[in-house]
Amino acid sequence: MASRTPPSTADRAARTSASARAAGEKPRRRLSVDERREQLIAVALELFSRRPPEEVSIDDIAAAAGASRPLVYHYFPGKQALYEESLRRAGQELSARFEEPLVGPLSERLHRVMGRYLDFVQSHGPGFAALLRGGSVAASADTTAVIDEVRRAAQEQILTHLAIPAPSIGLRLTVRAWIANAEITSLEWLADRSVPLEELQLHLVQEFVAALTLTAAREPALAGELASFLADEHPDGPTGRLVRDLAGLFAVPGIVEAVTVLAAGGPDDGATQAAGAAQAAGAAQAAEAAGAAAE
Amino acid sequence: MASRTPPSTADRAARTSASARAAGEKPRRRLSVDERREQLIAVALELFSRRPPEEVSIDDIAAAAGASRPLVYHYFPGKQALYEESLRRAGQELSARFEEPLVGPLSERLHRVMGRYLDFVQSHGPGFAALLRGGSVAASADTTAVIDEVRRAAQEQILTHLAIPAPSIGLRLTVRAWIANAEITSLEWLADRSVPLEELQLHLVQEFVAALTLTAAREPALAGELASFLADEHPDGPTGRLVRDLAGLFAVPGIVEAVTVLAAGGPDDGATQAAGAAQAAGAAQAAEAAGAAAE
Repeated sequence: MASRTPPSTADRAARTSASARAAGEKPRRRLSVDERREQLIAVALELFSRRPPEEVSIDDIAAAAGASRPLVYHYFPGKQALYEESLRRAGQELSARFEEPLVGPLSERLHRVMGRYLDFVQSHGPGFAALLRGGSVAASADTTAVIDEVRRAAQEQILTHLAIPAPSIGLRLTVRAWIANAEITSLEWLADRSVPLEELQLHLVQEFVAALTLTAAREPALAGELASFLADEHPDGPTGRLVRDLAGLFAVPGIVEAVTVLAAGGPDDGATQAAGAAQAAGAAQAAEAAGAAAE
Repeated sequence: MASRTPPSTADRAARTSASARAAGEKPRRRLSVDERREQLIAVALELFSRRPPEEVSIDDIAAAAGASRPLVYHYFPGKQALYEESLRRAGQELSARFEEPLVGPLSERLHRVMGRYLDFVQSHGPGFAALLRGGSVAASADTTAVIDEVRRAAQEQILTHLAIPAPSIGLRLTVRAWIANAEITSLEWLADRSVPLEELQLHLVQEFVAALTLTAAREPALAGELASFLADEHPDGPTGRLVRDLAGLFAVPGIVEAVTVLAAGGPDDGATQAAGAAQAAGAAQAAEAAGAAAE
């Protein structure tokens, strides 16, 4: 997991103005119109990232920016407009974190992206969680559009990395469902922070690999792509660790036997029965070896 | 997939009043206060299930119920109240569909539940989709509470069927994330209806089985539960089909080789290397057999 991002513009702006006020000084120079607008957005983003919108007032924003209430209203018609602008900036920042060079094993690229995503969740999530959970007082057609745009950007980034020319509906749905998984998982994490973020990061990547494998098992056209993907992976990366965790299950009493029966197919299905039996023999051998290796 | 549910009370009420009006008749008898309230809710539920709330007016509801606009207002303060009551009823109906006897293979129970769930999505989803997608004009703290209650009911039902005494945080999260997957998958399906609903039904169940397997691979305490679960499954059920689909991947050139390298672990890891090599030998054998069986 990457460490927290360095203090944002808003942090610095808020601190500068706070210390200026504490010392009874005026800010050194007037900000230009553009600078002031940017400063107000940065301060609002910082506050809205930490607290739900109903707990942030225009007065809070004005105070943190070292500005007057009328000055804030001069730039923005009200709190909702500032909230939506903050959310748009947060969305842009989040989308930028999905960008990753098309280099190296896929699961390691995704692992780095998820590190940046979860870092964002940790620092900006508390305030925006209500919006994602639904029922936020600040929800609107505009906020939904911003969130959908981030989801769309995430989906397109992933499809770009998969480098599959014409992704099937099934594959697009797999990616979209995994994004929903990442969202809900990070929202649940924000509520209780019960596991280290590094674990979520690894698990989400492994769940993506598993979802991709399942999709390839259903869509023969994807199986070759899965083979290339697996060939590029490193044993010490998320996929390698997943493969070994799954192989470990074969050492658990009863699992090989149950999988054997399932792989054999229905009682009248000779062909799959043969395949299943062979598969089971392989699994049994793997289980034996895993047991021996563990000793 | 189950066929569409029989015409609802609202359908019948709407048709009766429409034909009564067409014939210039008065309804045969006055409805009691309770009956009228229930009738208005049933009619509203029917309309709100088909169209987003902004496309349903109090006049539409009054007309469909064969009632006057003032009469509707006599029972409900406004459209939002009727919408929320309709959603509550829809939520109750949906939660009731999750109930399933604790009998038979787990994946087949879930398959039946998903059949009823997707049937509900097909008949009620079009109107409530905007709410789940976020940004609906009708979203409120109350609508969010109703939706969360349905999700909670789904999660508890699944955990009851898993029959694991004290489900870990990881397992609860797996179930919650899978519910999010089911939601987003059915919302995407509503938007384009591009695949047969039976496919979604099977895939969602198989994704649950895969998610459970992944969780067990991470949590040794769950591996025994996974073994019992697998032992109860039928070869012709969703899990059996999943096992054979996944086994089929081993016949794809390159996959066995890649998995072998990953299973072998890091270059200095002798023990896992041995396990990995054995695993690979088994996989190769399975691939050979699968290939032979396919001929």
